[in-house]
Amino acid sequence: MDEYIGRLKDGSLKLYALEKVLPPEEAVRVRRAFVERETGTALPKVGSFSIGLDRVVKRNIENMIGTVQVPLGVAGPLRVKGEYADGSYYLPLATTEGALVASVNRGCSLITRAGGADVRIMRDGMTRAPVFAARDVVHAREVVEWVEGHGAEIREVAQSTTKHGEFLEAVSYVAGTNVFVRLEFDTKDAMGMNMVTIAGQKVGEFIERETGARLIANSGNMCTDKKPAAINLVRGRGKTVVAGVRLTDEMVADLLKTDAETLAEVNYRKNLVGSARAASFGFNAHAANVVAAMFIACGQDPAHVVEGSTAITTVDRVDGGVYVSVTLPSLPVGTVGGGTGVDTQHECLAMLGVAGGGDPPGAHAKALGEIVAAGVLAGELSLLGALAAQHLARAHQEHGRG
Amino acid sequence: MDEYIGRLKDGSLKLYALEKVLPPEEAVRVRRAFVERETGTALPKVGSFSIGLDRVVKRNIENMIGTVQVPLGVAGPLRVKGEYADGSYYLPLATTEGALVASVNRGCSLITRAGGADVRIMRDGMTRAPVFAARDVVHAREVVEWVEGHGAEIREVAQSTTKHGEFLEAVSYVAGTNVFVRLEFDTKDAMGMNMVTIAGQKVGEFIERETGARLIANSGNMCTDKKPAAINLVRGRGKTVVAGVRLTDEMVADLLKTDAETLAEVNYRKNLVGSARAASFGFNAHAANVVAAMFIACGQDPAHVVEGSTAITTVDRVDGGVYVSVTLPSLPVGTVGGGTGVDTQHECLAMLGVAGGGDPPGAHAKALGEIVAAGVLAGELSLLGALAAQHLARAHQEHGRG
Amino acid sequence: MDEYIGRLKDGSLKLYALEKVLPPEEAVRVRRAFVERETGTALPKVGSFSIGLDRVVKRNIENMIGTVQVPLGVAGPLRVKGEYADGSYYLPLATTEGALVASVNRGCSLITRAGGADVRIMRDGMTRAPVFAARDVVHAREVVEWVEGHGAEIREVAQSTTKHGEFLEAVSYVAGTNVFVRLEFDTKDAMGMNMVTIAGQKVGEFIERETGARLIANSGNMCTDKKPAAINLVRGRGKTVVAGVRLTDEMVADLLKTDAETLAEVNYRKNLVGSARAASFGFNAHAANVVAAMFIACGQDPAHVVEGSTAITTVDRVDGGVYVSVTLPSLPVGTVGGGTGVDTQHECLAMLGVAGGGDPPGAHAKALGEIVAAGVLAGELSLLGALAAQHLARAHQEHGRG
Amino acid sequence: MDEYIGRLKDGSLKLYALEKVLPPEEAVRVRRAFVERETGTALPKVGSFSIGLDRVVKRNIENMIGTVQVPLGVAGPLRVKGEYADGSYYLPLATTEGALVASVNRGCSLITRAGGADVRIMRDGMTRAPVFAARDVVHAREVVEWVEGHGAEIREVAQSTTKHGEFLEAVSYVAGTNVFVRLEFDTKDAMGMNMVTIAGQKVGEFIERETGARLIANSGNMCTDKKPAAINLVRGRGKTVVAGVRLTDEMVADLLKTDAETLAEVNYRKNLVGSARAASFGFNAHAANVVAAMFIACGQDPAHVVEGSTAITTVDRVDGGVYVSVTLPSLPVGTVGGGTGVDTQHECLAMLGVAGGGDPPGAHAKALGEIVAAGVLAGELSLLGALAAQHLARAHQEHGRG
Repeated sequence: MDEYIGRLKDGSLKLYALEKVLPPEEAVRVRRAFVERETGTALPKVGSFSIGLDRVVKRNIENMIGTVQVPLGVAGPLRVKGEYADGSYYLPLATTEGALVASVNRGCSLITRAGGADVRIMRDGMTRAPVFAARDVVHAREVVEWVEGHGAEIREVAQSTTKHGEFLEAVSYVAGTNVFVRLEFDTKDAMGMNMVTIAGQKVGEFIERETGARLIANSGNMCTDKKPAAINLVRGRGKTVVAGVRLTDEMVADLLKTDAETLAEVNYRKNLVGSARAASFGFNAHAANVVAAMFIACGQDPAHVVEGSTAITTVDRVDGGVYVSVTLPSLPVGTVGGGTGVDTQHECLAMLGVAGGGDPPGAHAKALGEIVAAGVLAGELSLLGALAAQHLARAHQEHGRG
Repeated sequence: MDEYIGRLKDGSLKLYALEKVLPPEEAVRVRRAFVERETGTALPKVGSFSIGLDRVVKRNIENMIGTVQVPLGVAGPLRVKGEYADGSYYLPLATTEGALVASVNRGCSLITRAGGADVRIMRDGMTRAPVFAARDVVHAREVVEWVEGHGAEIREVAQSTTKHGEFLEAVSYVAGTNVFVRLEFDTKDAMGMNMVTIAGQKVGEFIERETGARLIANSGNMCTDKKPAAINLVRGRGKTVVAGVRLTDEMVADLLKTDAETLAEVNYRKNLVGSARAASFGFNAHAANVVAAMFIACGQDPAHVVEGSTAITTVDRVDGGVYVSVTLPSLPVGTVGGGTGVDTQHECLAMLGVAGGGDPPGAHAKALGEIVAAGVLAGELSLLGALAAQHLARAHQEHGRG
Repeated sequence: MDEYIGRLKDGSLKLYALEKVLPPEEAVRVRRAFVERETGTALPKVGSFSIGLDRVVKRNIENMIGTVQVPLGVAGPLRVKGEYADGSYYLPLATTEGALVASVNRGCSLITRAGGADVRIMRDGMTRAPVFAARDVVHAREVVEWVEGHGAEIREVAQSTTKHGEFLEAVSYVAGTNVFVRLEFDTKDAMGMNMVTIAGQKVGEFIERETGARLIANSGNMCTDKKPAAINLVRGRGKTVVAGVRLTDEMVADLLKTDAETLAEVNYRKNLVGSARAASFGFNAHAANVVAAMFIACGQDPAHVVEGSTAITTVDRVDGGVYVSVTLPSLPVGTVGGGTGVDTQHECLAMLGVAGGGDPPGAHAKALGEIVAAGVLAGELSLLGALAAQHLARAHQEHGRG
Repeated sequence: MDEYIGRLKDGSLKLYALEKVLPPEEAVRVRRAFVERETGTALPKVGSFSIGLDRVVKRNIENMIGTVQVPLGVAGPLRVKGEYADGSYYLPLATTEGALVASVNRGCSLITRAGGADVRIMRDGMTRAPVFAARDVVHAREVVEWVEGHGAEIREVAQSTTKHGEFLEAVSYVAGTNVFVRLEFDTKDAMGMNMVTIAGQKVGEFIERETGARLIANSGNMCTDKKPAAINLVRGRGKTVVAGVRLTDEMVADLLKTDAETLAEVNYRKNLVGSARAASFGFNAHAANVVAAMFIACGQDPAHVVEGSTAITTVDRVDGGVYVSVTLPSLPVGTVGGGTGVDTQHECLAMLGVAGGGDPPGAHAKALGEIVAAGVLAGELSLLGALAAQHLARAHQEHGRG
């Protein structure tokens, strides 16, 4: 131990190179010890974990020193009536925000009592949009025409980079001399960012070679990855999922302690008008909370909470009750690759019956997307209901006083 | 065990009520066993963890069944020259995205070699914006005037709800009959959402009582919490932080294998024009990745990655090199409360020297904000550099061929 | 004539210099003749107009060849109950969009029958935001602090440039090395863009001199002028105006041929959810139509239709009817300067009783803002009503068939 | 006269009904006289105009009382190298903003000296998006599938409503129970809003009948018409046009009195970073000014300035100079219908050689789109150049002092 730490200290061994000279457990242990000394901080809890390291240090992280443990709770059972997920589920939620699991749990009870949440996937495709520099505007137009006229070859190049994914289309956008070619793939059970990045690079180099436009970057930000962007609302990225449930007046009264009118008013004034007034891209109460908690639990990329936060929540007044829905225009999820193979995350996916590749391919990722959307619906219902109930309670109190 | 599972099964005991009849460790164990049976899934890794439960089950989560373990790596040392964080830091990054830590690490080396990242906090305040329903437009105007004319009383009511926080201001917005009063607080070392929620409720009820406008919801979405919203870019929420570093041509060549011109061009075409063309609220390469990894490591609210994703990255050409910066208009962070007390997360904060309350109050949270911004700068530099280097390499290759 | 045309042709006389050698009428006539020859197009109608030229060629236009005549209709009377406009008005609408005047007219009847539109101005200020380049992030912070610490001097410099306007405040924003200082003025009866531009230049040079930050441009696009920008929604630019009216069920049935529920549903699904799904900054039906027609009639800057298009329209269900409102966060209007002095436009302003400066200063511009907002409300009511009536008619038809 | 005014006064004759009992000139005269009396305002200039009324009162306006005259100037000649407009043009600009024509004129000179502006249309299609209410999420999905599966019938219904237009495609979007079907047409030389509105209504009723989803409104705001909306940036509406020009260092120095570096810096800090920081959908200096002035001159719908204001302006540094471009994602223009037939407007179109229908159909509207884009480029160049020259002048002054 001390020898390695000495070599790290004198620079003859690099921190990231420990795995080359030591088995993973040792490498992580030595590195942690080094960091403890350098920072003067004991890291006993970080250093005590239960996940296997072999795969993790190869695929998921560099310079590992241990793990961070996020408390995991469950909400449910939640009845989901999707095309891929059809059944009752306990939602794994990794969070440190007190009351979140309880709130989602209440929403699950309500939905389940109402017969379950209908869920449908409207669109499914992962994107990468390389940016090219054309010589001028005329050249930019030629590049776009070239792309439109060589779909088959682009498909062939794209397809040559992946056994699992399926190329869907290439759409071009121009801004001056900048040409963005947004490539879209059905990435099956993978969330697919790696897949489209590899394909994008190859296709990008192909277009550069053929058109003479310079490939500036494999991602030109019209993908758009991990930034709130209207293009993802309009064209989708990952899964576009919609979930809804009909509640009778009785259910609203019994379980939410409010009424249909108040529930609709809260949604109207807060989620619609309030978000409009704030110039927001998200028209919901707290979709990001549920997305974040399920993403961390299930080994999804937590930076994709950004995309999940753009949900639209609606409360329609209908005869005898309300119809409540959430629409997630852009939900990137997968059940293979990324963090899905880490032991604890894998267990969470297994709890939902969606660990690993589905049959047919893509079925597991689609099921996960449906379950997450239903979970978001549960969270929205519960929070809107709580706000409406408070409002109603105060209104009654006022009335009583009078 | 079996007895409790039986009672959970027959409904005589609620899943969330286990902590009432059992000590935390037992409750979690029984609940996990119940979920394992219900879902037919073994959860051994989820069930094996090192964090203490007493505090966690009280404050951070309900229905706990174990933990999810997120691999933790370090990047650094990173030289930060802020007003609150001034020194060299190893950044804790909890992630499953392979290559992320390595990439940030490269950025840290570069910044450190350049003498460190300058960081400044431009604004600091957490918000909550209750929404009220006025009777009509005239009443809406009266409510706004009432709020403007009763600042001292509003401050008093707000201040009565918190020992630690400091009320800053109340700003009103109207949309038809909807009045939104955006309350802002200096929440010191707490991220402050709970603090402002409690104060917001009290102030909201006060305004309702005094003006007759109905308090519809404590959050009217003009806060705006966990949704991408322009109001947070314009008025800030949490900390508004800017970090920058000057790189000489030699550093760009040596460490990024590219040149100043190419680096600036990549940023211009990708982060500025590309994001503009996508109608995005984020003008950066992958700020959300670094924010997410540091937030999970440090017990921050991962749904706030949404706010962090709206960073603007700039690359200015300057004499003899470039000046690269990131601006995070809305970064909510804290070092007390929330997930900061969970053992592993606490160790990560300790690594950075910012665990718990600072002296003076707020100093630790501000330091954390500065370090995160410097980390984002490292991530941006590294990715932009990699893209630029690839572009340059292909350009040279082309040239060589010719 | 021919001589001048010859000299224009051989380049010895510049097209824009005609006013220097000829009286306005002649200059315009010669220029038109020249353009007619150059383009082979007769322009008799363009050349036949009734407005006086002396002032116009000095202040409003260069290279004048005549006028474009926009058909002018009236809608009304419209009962407006504002703080500055209180009475019945015939709205002048310059438009070529068939049915627009008729539609607004119907809305005016409805509002007037309902007792009039309540209108309130929530905020009033015109802005200019110069952008400065700081040396680095530390310097950027220093510039912001300098601005915050020298408010009195900035006010003095700003105030020295205008007799009429009143400096309100300076708010700073930073993005990397860019510092934007948004200056706001009460410009009284002027729309105020010229006033703030002159003041902005002076203040900008002052800040440059004192801080060493380079003044890059007098407008740094955070003003934001004539681009849809959230900053104007959040902080206002020009007047922030809200108009509303309560309609009973009878009025909705009689005059709109629909019912309260259907009217509210159309607004909810179209103006709120539809705009949200399109990632729009405007949540209305056709506010821009009314703003454009009134702006052209009244000599306002038609490029400011952009700002006017960001209105939010709401339809609240209330006991016995609906309450309908429009909110225009950013409406730049004036009654002196700009196009307000052109004869026909001046007559339109006179029709509204708001031509020239008000007493006290600002009263006329405020009244105009209130009237425009009431006009927008009329347009929204009429179009929403028509859509709702169609929907209802089809629904009844369906029902009848069944 | 007095008789009619008496009847208008006592309500036995409606203001809008005058054309039914009197020839247009008389009707307009009587109505004006009535308004003059009612408002106590003389309207002699409004009442003195040169345009013919027969067509105008039938198609363009109701309740006409005269015209508003907007001063018309010319800028040019401007060399345009488009695919539809190829030649030198004098731009008609109707405006009251002093210095605008002069500024655009300077830009025209510069572009013309540089050999002309390259212009290309990237996309062309006008849209209308009816909104339907589905029963629930499952039904919403079925409606989308029905639309996708019945493209041929939808095309047939759409096509049955127009001889001139060509149906392009139907794209569906869902938000909860709301289904938006965005219909797109090639409307040839017409701007096309009327065409798509009529077709939309018919298609909407067809879809309602076939799917049972209720047609709520023919426009569901995802069109998006006259509101700033990202969907138009991403998918286009009207013409998507790009114009660019290469300037040598000499031209920049001679005509703009600045240098390439400064010009690029102003664009970078103002149009890109400034607009990003303001959360804007427009990344330009003053595109709306040129669009508004040309739209009013040429009988376009001035409310469509909103769409035109979303331009992106870029300045690329290239060897020996700069390449400057503007991109207008959404520019709705036409040369037949709307205001294009009013005499003065028709003359302006004739000046550009694009009055009436083109050969082949659509060629005139496309040419107009190209010319407007080139005009916007001229305006941007001139203003950016002026800002850069000022900055440079101050910089030199500073230097001289030192």
